[in-house]
Amino acid sequence: MKIVLATGNAGKARELGAMLGTQVTVEVVPAGFVVDETGETFFQNALLKARAARGITPDDVLVLADDSGLAVHSLGGRPGINSARYAGAEATDDDNCTRLLDELRGTADRRAAFVCVLVALAADDTMTVACGTCSGQITLARRGQGGFGYDPLFVPDGRTDAMAQMTAAQKNAISHRGRAARQLACALGVAA
Amino acid sequence: MKIVLATGNAGKARELGAMLGTQVTVEVVPAGFVVDETGETFFQNALLKARAARGITPDDVLVLADDSGLAVHSLGGRPGINSARYAGAEATDDDNCTRLLDELRGTADRRAAFVCVLVALAADDTMTVACGTCSGQITLARRGQGGFGYDPLFVPDGRTDAMAQMTAAQKNAISHRGRAARQLACALGVAA
Repeated sequence: MKIVLATGNAGKARELGAMLGTQVTVEVVPAGFVVDETGETFFQNALLKARAARGITPDDVLVLADDSGLAVHSLGGRPGINSARYAGAEATDDDNCTRLLDELRGTADRRAAFVCVLVALAADDTMTVACGTCSGQITLARRGQGGFGYDPLFVPDGRTDAMAQMTAAQKNAISHRGRAARQLACALGVAA
Repeated sequence: MKIVLATGNAGKARELGAMLGTQVTVEVVPAGFVVDETGETFFQNALLKARAARGITPDDVLVLADDSGLAVHSLGGRPGINSARYAGAEATDDDNCTRLLDELRGTADRRAAFVCVLVALAADDTMTVACGTCSGQITLARRGQGGFGYDPLFVPDGRTDAMAQMTAAQKNAISHRGRAARQLACALGVAA
């Protein structure tokens, strides 16, 4: 099976490629693939990206889109679907981390969860959906150099390391994206 | 472990109770529990319900909230978080099913997915999140008497029966809520 990842995010593409790559050939949409993420939910935004990529992808290739983000308890679930744009439309991962640390300064409640929704569209009449979550706590400062996004600020429940301190394999074993990808691979019949 | 379900929806309470009931005692919030579901995502709405219930629940009882809905491909992911209110604020399941069938009349693309997000809040500093999806197709007419919500209109991928034609055990084995509940039970250490 060939899969094209409908994402311009190098971090997501790297992780999904590694997780799905054993039985499938994974490519990424051409550079410059940008979709206006106007959906109200993770699912709707993933669907927007999947449909846009479906339109430019050969019929024998499955399209896979990811929408994911961080939901913080004391912020009522924000930044949620706006996680990648939390500090502004052009925000970097570092900008977003800085804003989150600033917003939570002095807040004892550090509960949060990562959420990932995957939508796969085949050229025929098939859509396959999967999702994964990872519950944890927001740190008081950045920790580690791995991963991307909010990984330096997130310690999964039951662990002491932030996600950015883990190896890719350690992170994928418990991450929202890893859980969603394994569920999707199982539904597609390509589980490793 | 004691769990209180933060839902006024009898169908959700019945299913979650049956799925979590082996190692835990499950109760439902008092009648009249209503929360304004103003969140933008399933997660945010589940969090609103969980926090409201947390405020009226003893410390030794875990609060569990569910937000879930149906995302239809040809409707761009709608009704999504508005699934229960699709045909209006006071809509019944039957009203919502009628509206969906009407909207999809003549539409060959029947792809859809159920999504369920569960948020559990303990009295201490812990939040546990889980989610599940179920991909399938929307029928051309109602089928079956079981389940609730859009179950008469949804045939899961790989099956020929609509969810409302299945026994509770058959539905729970593959449903979005069943998958989310098993993930949550595992995270909470109460998996059957």
